[in-house]
This record gives sequence, C-alpha cells and structure tokens, in this order.
Amino acid sequence: MIVVMKAGSPEAEISRLTEEFVSWGLTPEKIVGQHKVVIGLVGETVSLDPLQIQEVSSWIEQVLRVEQPFKRASRTYRHGEASEVAVPTPDKTVYFGEHHPIVVVAGPCSVENEDMIIETAERVKAAGAQFLRGGAFKPRTSPYAFQGHGESALGLLAAARHATGLGIITEVMDAADLDAIADVADVIQIGARNMQNFSLLKKVGAQDKPVLLKRGMAATIEDWLMAAEYILAAGNSNVILCERGIRTFDRQFARNTLDLSAIPVLRSLTHLPIMIDPSHGTGRAEYVPAMAMAAIAAGTDSLMIEVHPNPKKALSDGPQSLTPDRFDQLMQELAVIGTPLGRWTKQPAIV
Amino acid sequence: MIVVMKAGSPEAEISRLTEEFVSWGLTPEKIVGQHKVVIGLVGETVSLDPLQIQEVSSWIEQVLRVEQPFKRASRTYRHGEASEVAVPTPDKTVYFGEHHPIVVVAGPCSVENEDMIIETAERVKAAGAQFLRGGAFKPRTSPYAFQGHGESALGLLAAARHATGLGIITEVMDAADLDAIADVADVIQIGARNMQNFSLLKKVGAQDKPVLLKRGMAATIEDWLMAAEYILAAGNSNVILCERGIRTFDRQFARNTLDLSAIPVLRSLTHLPIMIDPSHGTGRAEYVPAMAMAAIAAGTDSLMIEVHPNPKKALSDGPQSLTPDRFDQLMQELAVIGTPLGRWTKQPAIV
Amino acid sequence: MIVVMKAGSPEAEISRLTEEFVSWGLTPEKIVGQHKVVIGLVGETVSLDPLQIQEVSSWIEQVLRVEQPFKRASRTYRHGEASEVAVPTPDKTVYFGEHHPIVVVAGPCSVENEDMIIETAERVKAAGAQFLRGGAFKPRTSPYAFQGHGESALGLLAAARHATGLGIITEVMDAADLDAIADVADVIQIGARNMQNFSLLKKVGAQDKPVLLKRGMAATIEDWLMAAEYILAAGNSNVILCERGIRTFDRQFARNTLDLSAIPVLRSLTHLPIMIDPSHGTGRAEYVPAMAMAAIAAGTDSLMIEVHPNPKKALSDGPQSLTPDRFDQLMQELAVIGTPLGRWTKQPAIV
Amino acid sequence: MIVVMKAGSPEAEISRLTEEFVSWGLTPEKIVGQHKVVIGLVGETVSLDPLQIQEVSSWIEQVLRVEQPFKRASRTYRHGEASEVAVPTPDKTVYFGEHHPIVVVAGPCSVENEDMIIETAERVKAAGAQFLRGGAFKPRTSPYAFQGHGESALGLLAAARHATGLGIITEVMDAADLDAIADVADVIQIGARNMQNFSLLKKVGAQDKPVLLKRGMAATIEDWLMAAEYILAAGNSNVILCERGIRTFDRQFARNTLDLSAIPVLRSLTHLPIMIDPSHGTGRAEYVPAMAMAAIAAGTDSLMIEVHPNPKKALSDGPQSLTPDRFDQLMQELAVIGTPLGRWTKQPAIV
Repeated sequence: MIVVMKAGSPEAEISRLTEEFVSWGLTPEKIVGQHKVVIGLVGETVSLDPLQIQEVSSWIEQVLRVEQPFKRASRTYRHGEASEVAVPTPDKTVYFGEHHPIVVVAGPCSVENEDMIIETAERVKAAGAQFLRGGAFKPRTSPYAFQGHGESALGLLAAARHATGLGIITEVMDAADLDAIADVADVIQIGARNMQNFSLLKKVGAQDKPVLLKRGMAATIEDWLMAAEYILAAGNSNVILCERGIRTFDRQFARNTLDLSAIPVLRSLTHLPIMIDPSHGTGRAEYVPAMAMAAIAAGTDSLMIEVHPNPKKALSDGPQSLTPDRFDQLMQELAVIGTPLGRWTKQPAIV
Repeated sequence: MIVVMKAGSPEAEISRLTEEFVSWGLTPEKIVGQHKVVIGLVGETVSLDPLQIQEVSSWIEQVLRVEQPFKRASRTYRHGEASEVAVPTPDKTVYFGEHHPIVVVAGPCSVENEDMIIETAERVKAAGAQFLRGGAFKPRTSPYAFQGHGESALGLLAAARHATGLGIITEVMDAADLDAIADVADVIQIGARNMQNFSLLKKVGAQDKPVLLKRGMAATIEDWLMAAEYILAAGNSNVILCERGIRTFDRQFARNTLDLSAIPVLRSLTHLPIMIDPSHGTGRAEYVPAMAMAAIAAGTDSLMIEVHPNPKKALSDGPQSLTPDRFDQLMQELAVIGTPLGRWTKQPAIV
Repeated sequence: MIVVMKAGSPEAEISRLTEEFVSWGLTPEKIVGQHKVVIGLVGETVSLDPLQIQEVSSWIEQVLRVEQPFKRASRTYRHGEASEVAVPTPDKTVYFGEHHPIVVVAGPCSVENEDMIIETAERVKAAGAQFLRGGAFKPRTSPYAFQGHGESALGLLAAARHATGLGIITEVMDAADLDAIADVADVIQIGARNMQNFSLLKKVGAQDKPVLLKRGMAATIEDWLMAAEYILAAGNSNVILCERGIRTFDRQFARNTLDLSAIPVLRSLTHLPIMIDPSHGTGRAEYVPAMAMAAIAAGTDSLMIEVHPNPKKALSDGPQSLTPDRFDQLMQELAVIGTPLGRWTKQPAIV
Repeated sequence: MIVVMKAGSPEAEISRLTEEFVSWGLTPEKIVGQHKVVIGLVGETVSLDPLQIQEVSSWIEQVLRVEQPFKRASRTYRHGEASEVAVPTPDKTVYFGEHHPIVVVAGPCSVENEDMIIETAERVKAAGAQFLRGGAFKPRTSPYAFQGHGESALGLLAAARHATGLGIITEVMDAADLDAIADVADVIQIGARNMQNFSLLKKVGAQDKPVLLKRGMAATIEDWLMAAEYILAAGNSNVILCERGIRTFDRQFARNTLDLSAIPVLRSLTHLPIMIDPSHGTGRAEYVPAMAMAAIAAGTDSLMIEVHPNPKKALSDGPQSLTPDRFDQLMQELAVIGTPLGRWTKQPAIV
C-alpha cells in the first residue's frame, strides 16, 4: 500500500501517521519527493481498505494499492497454474479448464414444457454439447413477464438429464430454492443481476455443487473476481466465470457489448475457468455465430449458447436463440477453428 | 407497438403476420412507406414484449414500443398527480413527496456501537434530520471487509430510535432478515446491488413497511421504474426512489457519476417521491455539500447524507462521511436555498 | 512516480533498473515489501509517461503516478487561487470566475437569419444575459443536416453584437475560419467533438481571444484538463471549461448525462472558470430549468442556455431550446437561489 | 418516421399536424390506439431529423425513425453486396473486403528514425504484412509528450515504402498537412479523436486516396457510419472502418474495450470493409494476440498491429507494441485459423 501525502503536509502529521501505521503492525517507509512525501506500507496489507487508510489524515492525497484485493481467486494463489472444475454428469465427468477441450453448454432461455426441453436436450447433445442450460426461475425486467415455471421446471430438467445424460446448469435467484435446484443441477448459475447479491454468494459458497458466476452488467473485472472470492472464501473452490456482455453507451444493435478481452485479462489474473455467453452478450441470434467463433479463438474454456426448437414461440429471450439446425451448423463451424487450436473433441456423429 | 418490416418483405408474409396479430386479439393497421411497411398494433399491448414480437417473423426489422412498460409507477397511473409516502415515526408522521418539505436522512454507513449510533442520532436530529440511516447488514465488495454487525446492530438502531424519536432506514440484503429488520426500521432500503434481485423485491412488496429503492449502478431509468413496479405490483404502494450515482467511464475523482437529471426525468415519468444520496453518489466528503445543494435546486424530495462522528475510524465508507460539525454547517447552507424555494422547514435550534 | 515490480523480480533486474533511472537524472528509492519491491522515483517526473517507464522492464507490474499530469491548468500552479477570465464586450468587461457573479450566455443553436438573431439577442439581453451564443459553423452528425450559414452568419452575429452590446460566443470547427471568427467573437468555442483536435487547440492557444473549451462526450476530467493544458501551453491563459453532458449507458430520456459533480471536482483541481450547458447536457428543454438551478447551487461560474424565438422552426437542436418567454421566467427562478448565494447581479429590468 | 402523440392530444392539434406534414410533401397516416395516436409519415423522410419533427408540436411524445440515417454507407445502397477498397501499392494492388484475404497492417506507433522504420518495415513485410503503419503526426493527450516528427517522418515513410514495396498508412490530424501526407500515404488515417472532426472528414472526402476511419472512443455504430457518410458524400467511396476499442467503465487492465461485435453488426449494416486494431483496442501487448485471433474468427477483413523493434525505447505507446519476433510468431498463429477459414494467403517465407 502506498500513501501519497498532499504537497505541504506538515512534518508532525507525517510523524503522527507513521506512528499510527506502526501501531497497526506495519512497517512504514518514507520517500521524500520534490513536492510530495510518499509512505510505503510494508506488512500484512491485503485486508486493508485504501479508503479506510485515506481517512486517517486529511493530509493524505491518495492511497494506491500494490497488491490485488483478491487472494483465493488470483493466479498466484495457485502458483501460476490454472485450476480445473470437474463436474460429474450422468454420461461422464466433464472438465472445465484451459488444459481441456472447450465445453459447450446449450439450451433454451427457459424451460417451457417437457417436449420442448427433451427435444432441445437431444438435439444439442447430438450436436456435441455436454450441458443443457434452461431456466426454471427467470430474472425478468418486468413483473408482468413470464417468470419461469419454477419447481415444476426443475422436474423437467431432471427428466432431460435422465433422458440424455447431459449435465444441467440452471440459475438460482432465491436462497430458498437452493436445495431444490442443487438436487437437479450439476452446476448452479448465479445470474448477472445477482453477481453482487452477497448473501446468495455466501450460500452457494457453503454448498458443494460447482457455481457458474456470470459477470454483472457494470462489474469491473476486479468486482467480478471479488464476487468469486466470496464463493471461494465460503469453501467452494469450483467456480466458473462467465462473461455475458457489459452495458455500454451503444445498445442500438447489439444489446450488450461482449467483452472478449476479458479472456486474456482473466487468464493473467486468475486460475479459474472461463465461459463466454455470446447469446446474452449480443442479444441477437444473427450475431451469435461470429462471437462464438471469436471466443474460441481468444481462448475461452467454455461456451454457453441459447438454442430453442422454435424461437418464434419462445416465452423469453427468443430473439437471441438459435434453432437446433443453426446450432448444428455452428458446431461444425466452431470445429473448423477449435480443432487446429487443439481445443475441440471429435463430436459424436449427429444421428 | 409498431412493427417495422424489412425492405422487400413479401406481401404473403405481411398477411400471415397480420392474421397472427389478429389471433392475439390485436388490431393491426398497415402503413405502406416508400421502402418499408410498418404495422401498428392497436389493443392491449402493455404486457407484450417487443423481443417476443420480433421473433414472429424473420422479416421483422424492429419493434418499437409506444407505451411505457411500467404502469403502476407511471405518472399517468395517478392522472399526473404526485404520490406521497407517509411514514409514522416516534416523533411524528413524516411525508416524502413533491408537495412536502425536503426530508433529510443522515447517519453512518454502518452501525458500529451504541455510543456512536446514539451520538450520531442526537447530532443529526439536532441539525434537522428526520431519519437516521445506518447499516446493520452491509454489502461489501470484499468478503474480507467488515460485513456489518447484523442483528445486534438492529438492537442499537432501535435504541437510537427510542432515544431520539427519529425514524430508521436500514438495508435488507437477505429475505431471511426481513422480519427482524421490519421490526425496527420505518423504511426498508433495497441497495443498488440488489435493485434487480427480483425475489427480494417481491418480498418487500408483500410486506407493509415503505421501501427505499436505490438505483443500480448500471440501471437505466426504465429498469429502475420496472424494479419499483415489482414492489408496487406485489401490493406495497409506498416506494421512494433513491439516485446514488451511476457507473461511467470516469471514476478517478468522483467514485460514481451522480445523475441529477434523474430528478426532472423521474418527475415527468412517475408519481413516486425522489431521494438523492450525494455521499455514495460522489464517494468523497468534500464533494457532498455541492451536490446536496444541487439536488435541492433540481427539486429532490429528500436527501440521504452520511455522517459519522469520527470518519477516520469508520469501519466502512469513511471517506464519504461528513463529521457532525460539517453536517450542522451543511444544513444551514441547504436552508439558504431550500427556504426561498419553499421546500425547507424551520429546523429545530441546535442545542 | 512509483514503480511496482512483479512478485519474484530478480535482484539483478532491480539493480539494472535502478541504474537506468539514475542515468535519467532521477533518484530511485527502494521499498522491499512482503511480496513485491516498489521503487519510488524522486526528481523531475512530471514529463515522464508511466507507459514509457513500464516498458523499461518486463518485470515491472505497474507504474503509479503521484503528480498530476497537468501543470498550468492545476490549482497549485496558482498557489490555490482561482483565476478569472476578463472579456471586454461592447457594453462592459465581463468577468468569469468563482469570485464573480454568474455569467449567463444564451442564444440559438445556430444563426438562422438577421431578424431571428437580433430578436433573440435583444430578448436574452433584456432577461439578463451578458453573452449571445449562436453557431455559424455547426458540427452535425449527418452530412445531410443543416451545417450552419458559415461566414454570412458571422456578419449577423456582428450585427447583433453591435445592436445589443452583448459579447459573442461562437464555435470554430476549422482552423481556416479562425481569423474570421476571431474578428467577430469575444470568446471562441471549441466544441465537444473537437476537444482532442490537438491541431486546433494549438491554434486557438496561439491567438488572443479567450477560449471556451467544451468537454468531450467521453473525456475524463483529466483528459479535459490536458486539453486545456494544450491551449495554456501555447500561450493563451484565458480558458473557460464547459461541461455539456457525458455519454453513458442511459440515453433514453436525457440525451446525455450532465455531470454536475464536475463542478466541485474541477474546483479542487484547477483554477480555471467553469460553465455548465444544461441544454446540450440534457437535450430536452423541459429538463433545462431544473439542471440550470442545480448548476448554480453546485457553484458554477457561468451558464450556457439555448434560446430560440420559435423552437418549432429551429434549423438545429430545436427540442433543447427554450422560448424567450420561458427564458425570462427561468432567469427569475435562477435569481431566487443565485441571490442568497451571492452569485447573482441585479438584472436590468425587462422592458 | 413514426410520430407518437401524447395521451390526450386534442383532435384539432392532430389535424393541424397532419396538414403541416402534408405541406412538407409527406403523406401522414394516422393510427388510433387505445391511449395514443400514432402518425406514420410516408415519403422522402431520410433527410428529416426526428428532433426537428418533435418540435412541431408540444403534444408529440416521441418520433421514431424507421429508415437508417446513413445512405451511401448502408449495405442496401449496394443491394446487399460488399464493396472492396483496392489500394495500389509499390508491390501490388491490395484489396480490402470480405471476399479477399485478410490484410495485415503493422508498424510502430510513431516513426522515430530511418533505421527503426526501415528495419520494422522489412521485418513486418517478411512476416507477411502488406502495409506499414507509422505516425508522423501523433495525437497525444499531453502537450508535453512527443508529438511525432512531422514532415521529416513522412520522408522516412517514403523511404520505407521504396525500400520494401509495402503500402503506407499514416494519420492526418490537420488539413494543412493533407497534401504532404497524400503524397506519401497509400491510405490516409483519420484517428479516433477526429472521427467527428467534420471539416477534416469533408476534406479527406474531397481527395482521392482511400481513407481509414477509426471509430471514436464513444461513437455509436450509427455515429461512425454517419462519419463515413461524410466522406462518401464528399465523393470518396474508398473508406475502411477500423474498430480500436471503446471507452467503458472498466479501464483497469485493458485500456479500452475492444468491441468485436462491431464486426457482425457492421457486416449487416454496411458494405464497407472492416479493420480491427487490437493494439489500441487493449493497450497492452500481452492481450494483443488473443484479440487478433478473435478478430479473424469473427470475420474481420483486416488487422492493424503495432510492432516496434524495441518497445522499451519507443517514444510513444510502447506498452502495446509487439517485438518483431513476437509478431512473426503471431502471424503463424493467425494462419492456424485464417487458413481453414479461407481468409489467409500463403505468406512469403521469413528470410
């Protein structure tokens, strides 16, 4: 931690501060510049809050952090190595991580009925997906919009899991539903709007199922890693980070701005596996294939893609869903670059 | 709802669409332009989702909404009249609304101990505040930062309420704490990070205490009013909207960008009372007075200001807190413009 | 300048770096922390670029600036005192600055014809404005939109100046027009879109007329002060800073987000006078009065307001213009708070 | 153009408006909804400004555009076909466009001296680049930073062009330099900060050399296409669009947010060729390879990459430059996906 004093700070104040820092168990080291004095704080500074320090004296101009505020999520926590998240599914154990093939998660925005979810599951499995996504509880901007079928939809997901052997990813919005969701889901999703719902983060951190943590619409990379830190600190080390588009000044064509540079940035900062969701990230089906391709080229570990057997009739988020046929074609396009990059497994033949 | 067809849409497709809309109970009206055909949908369109409509045909270029998506929150719902939120406090009933004097809410970011909360309550009351704010449960970016004293802090707020007669505003982060909070609080706060925690919105909407709904960091005005609509639709009509700074590209000096234009915008769109929080809105105590002044001039109904007896020792958000002395002075400055604007009550003498 | 080394940097590299910095004439001081080494650079560091330093070694993690990058624009350059910009106008010398009454600049977006500009000038003068604004050369998003009447409009501004005694503020878009504009204008405006047109900044810095520098739509406060620094460094010390709304994620109701917190932030950083333009800042006439009031309460030195005798027929930016009648009323509303704040001069009676 | 009237608009006002629109040569068509009346305007509406229309009556709630405001830049202007920009260079004519191999532009941020620019040119040519980039005139945030060597640097670019046969791309900041630049450059660059310098756009539109138009930091896709429209409307049809990162709330790790979704969005809206600049787009060399890969996968027609023989000594933008060795390696990585996508030409052997 570096404390920059205002120009003209009295010597006595600097001495007082130095003593204060010593009393906290730190070793302050003073550098006298041309106009300003700077105090370096040596010792256990990770848990210190720069804003807190700033308040110790009104002569402090700014406090600069030298250490990252996240610890368990940081790449150095694992000595520079990537971690992997292993998820047992009915078919097999699927691994998310930079040394594994890309994992494809596909399915509808929300679970509508048994036929549609089973049909979608079969189609996406045939095309090569390892996980089925589908919302039972849906966060919707309007209270008058379809909110998901709730618990009954969980039953349908269980049926699709049983029928196809795919793993299930579905979102928890309310801690009260967590047990019911954990009974069915192989991975529990925290949605963008709940990324800083710290009560919920603590609760998914205190259970065993892996957690998919979507980035909030206005979350910095640091905010996001701190949210992951909540889950890790609560005891659950299986966290996957999913970029799904941030909110910027231009929302006319693409609904969000998919921040693919998050991939190399996260790779350098954290050991956690990375997923990209180009469906929410762009909000329009016609932009999804280009961005799915780009995500693979940039090095993602996983993709989440919305697929709906009949997007025109979808009860939510239709415009960003691909048809199963378009998804089949996309998987073949993805293989064209995923294969030479060594991140694509030979997909099962489409029956 | 206006449906714009792509240039070159086949006549047969337009007919098919028209029939589809009729089958929904709507009356479609067609306008044939130079390059494009436009279909106006007349009827019950409020609950329709433009994204849904877009999916009915791939020949649809865009769907433009003519009606606002919020209903109970809209000003027209009350025929253009403002609503007021009446809050019984030990001292008196306090009214939030555009035909009432400005209500001042003040207090520390978090409740630290009995002495500090009682002292702060007495000081802010003496300066003219009607409500004490103070966090028992604190949303913190880091899991390693102070998370609030929780239930024991609620007891201290009750003591401060009893000692001073001030109303209490405190935040709920977890529905499990709602009853305990409602026992003490006169107004329940939903924080910025939970603005789209729809489960929580439904629960505060289903109880009786008035709700202070803070704007999310990246929430549009429309998102925010839709969040209020969740509470209103659940049966609680006492909602106050609090602007607390949005996230923009410049975060170097002010931590957030306080969007004061939200005041005239909300005034034209909604009947709900408006509060401004310049403390979180700027993140630095030295900018708070200017922005509190500006909020009054722009027409706010209420102000929320952080005050801490000793900001240097504050366990959270110290740098944005005023000292009680600075708050006394600010209240006198605010009176200078609040009085000629007819929105300031004669304050009790400072003892 | 503070250089933070990556964890695990070799001792030899730190020695090499230290020698490099010494060879630049700097005095490096080393602080050895728990995980990282930090090097403080003492000496003439203002002109150093942190990005440049970062490249000296791949073991450097980050470089933190301790000094502000602007010098002539900084408040410390004038030992904490505000500067004033004195503008001789036909009527009198008008002063912009924090120790002077608020200066009001009003007029149409663009100069349309002699009658309208003279009529507007007379009306805004009668209401108390000291400057007439009006565009001869207009920056328009579309090449097909009205681009201003150019040189002939300058003649009309000169006529309005002569007829009313008001000072003139008009925008330069092309250095080729600078002389012609300087012949007529009392203050030369650099528009938001040209805030980082550094060639133009150097040219207005090399002439004598005062410069009104509008903030770019995505300019940070630091970028903006650096743009001012270009003008100051070129020899022109008469610069006024005008906030006119920044671009954020919400553009549905207000076209831009007027950043009024720029007022206290600038006040602490720079000695230059501050102007607020609520017309462009919100983009809608109905929001202008509230934001003009707020700007005064927050401490602005000047206001720029669009007034058009017949906004419905305006050739540009009609929706954000007030009618002269509404402007008369606004000036009386502004006096209600400007007077007790000691920033309002008794206005001439409206004839 | 769709005019939405406020609820409760008087019938007489709607009639008056209708007559007004007829007098403009338009055919208004009225749709009477449940709460609101909507008027569709049929006829020549492209040059109409929605803001202008809004002013015709205070009973107008909003005006929605149905047609795009750009014409020559739109894909429909070329009946859905892509255009190509053919650039004669000493070696050969290079084509930019979606039916051609990806064109790689590489070189230093600024031209420093003859040795460095010739060496860089030779290295990037050997690696497969077709164009050399290099700044003679540099837009720098600080007036105290290196501003480029100006005209003398143009001579060095000419020498590098002669020595290697590469085409030259360099930036114009001041119309006064345009002729001198056009003498040397094969493509003239308009930088992000001048994207809405409309005077300059008109001037590059009135000369013959192709123009590379970089996206402004806060420019929407629509703003950007309108800027291209200025050049096209002035008579120059050879415009290439270059995305180089937009400004968002997160600037801690990547300096800008590279908006790769611009690729599919532009592809659907315009016929113009697309370039991606991952160097400025991320601001850090270590993120460049991942984003260059992603750009190719998303379908870019061209890449611009900063290469400097000794980034540590670079006079500007060092931290985002690759070394020639890293660039060699990157070109081989790009071929791995460019080749199966059919967008990569066999590169000359690296000597």
